[in-house]
Amino acid sequence: MTEIQKKTLSVVKVGGAVLEDVSSLAVFLDRFVALPGLKILVHGGGRVATKLSEQLNIVSKMVEGRRITDANTLDVVTMVYGGLINKKTVAALQARGCNAGGFTGGDMNLISADKRPVKDIDYGFAGDVNSVNQEAFALLLNNGITPVIAPLTHDGKGQLLNTNADTIASEIAGVLSNLFSVSLVFCFEKPGVLSDANDENSVIPELTLTSYQSYKEKAIIHSGMIPKLDNSFDALRKGVKQVIITSASTLDIHSGTRISL
Amino acid sequence: MTEIQKKTLSVVKVGGAVLEDVSSLAVFLDRFVALPGLKILVHGGGRVATKLSEQLNIVSKMVEGRRITDANTLDVVTMVYGGLINKKTVAALQARGCNAGGFTGGDMNLISADKRPVKDIDYGFAGDVNSVNQEAFALLLNNGITPVIAPLTHDGKGQLLNTNADTIASEIAGVLSNLFSVSLVFCFEKPGVLSDANDENSVIPELTLTSYQSYKEKAIIHSGMIPKLDNSFDALRKGVKQVIITSASTLDIHSGTRISL
Repeated sequence: MTEIQKKTLSVVKVGGAVLEDVSSLAVFLDRFVALPGLKILVHGGGRVATKLSEQLNIVSKMVEGRRITDANTLDVVTMVYGGLINKKTVAALQARGCNAGGFTGGDMNLISADKRPVKDIDYGFAGDVNSVNQEAFALLLNNGITPVIAPLTHDGKGQLLNTNADTIASEIAGVLSNLFSVSLVFCFEKPGVLSDANDENSVIPELTLTSYQSYKEKAIIHSGMIPKLDNSFDALRKGVKQVIITSASTLDIHSGTRISL
Repeated sequence: MTEIQKKTLSVVKVGGAVLEDVSSLAVFLDRFVALPGLKILVHGGGRVATKLSEQLNIVSKMVEGRRITDANTLDVVTMVYGGLINKKTVAALQARGCNAGGFTGGDMNLISADKRPVKDIDYGFAGDVNSVNQEAFALLLNNGITPVIAPLTHDGKGQLLNTNADTIASEIAGVLSNLFSVSLVFCFEKPGVLSDANDENSVIPELTLTSYQSYKEKAIIHSGMIPKLDNSFDALRKGVKQVIITSASTLDIHSGTRISL
């Protein structure tokens, strides 16, 4: 018995410096619209949020690279992620003939989350993904819409929550593997996972769970790359076909670092 | 030959003081979700945008009640309308069991506009509605989604534009009259169109084109109410079944001011 051929879907996460620079973003978006098959774009925007917070004299507290989201900071990220970055990206995609629609997790109940419980650290209005609404994503994708997702979720009780964009991309990719043949692509300003942070030619072409452990033990892979890779392996365990970490300026899924179990 | 029964659709515009006050907004949203039939909510947010502009030392220039939208102001309204107000409203509706989705005109190409030509006044990035995407609205409505619309449009060439929320509500109501039996409801902090601005008991129960002309000549109806009423009559000419101007705290379409041609 042959399995019904699933449509291909690329879930692409972009963040960091790419979003801040008009020309980098334009190059990235050109590459994004050229990807074949169905597409979802997940964006970050932390640096832009930090700048606006500074202008408003709101202190952005960070613990281990994660933002502590108090009420004022939640308003800032709702404005920056849900408004400024999301809507500008949508308009730029529309201009490229891509019928984009911008969403947070609250919209159409796409992604619900639970407020992170307070243990050692109170992360404030930070949300851990509870469920991804596969029917709502399928409705959009099957009607020619390219969802552009801001890293915000909601708890279903009226509270918006700040959620890590890498995690959102990974969770969406995992759940939508039920319906589509999914590639998860993390794009950033580097050409892939580097074995030497100062050498752009040191891209590690392939990472398995075993080699990842070894790189971690040697502290070759560390800090911000660890949650990204943990998210990658999580996605693969949930049925995502391939995970690639690559450059936003090429969005070439045949270069960069390929992750496999 | 009987006409196929069209589904009823309420296009509700809310703005002004209602959006700023947490308890007024909660009462309004309770009423909104209780409305029978399909629903679209269009919101403003000018006062919140003005406050944020002040905090960022951006001077909001107004001419005849219309905001001059320079590049910085466009960023502010994109953050406030498209982000803060839109996404908080969506989350609050989700908590009330209403499957809301928040959109600007750029999202799914719902509303495209042309940048207003410079004549006597340069309004900057202000957009006059060019077309409303009836298929995209129908897709959402027929799939149980309640669109929540921020007063932003796009020109299809990558530029977001600031567009008056009353006009957006009127344009959506007009176009969707092709598919639905549409009521257009303008809600605000007053109980209707007043013949004496200082007397809340002076609601004019019915306005026709003839009586409107007469009230205008006597300057009983003036300033901000004029574009709202012009939008109302436009909508009726496009096939909207009824237009009501009423209080956001009751959202009672049997009280307030009923507009007819």
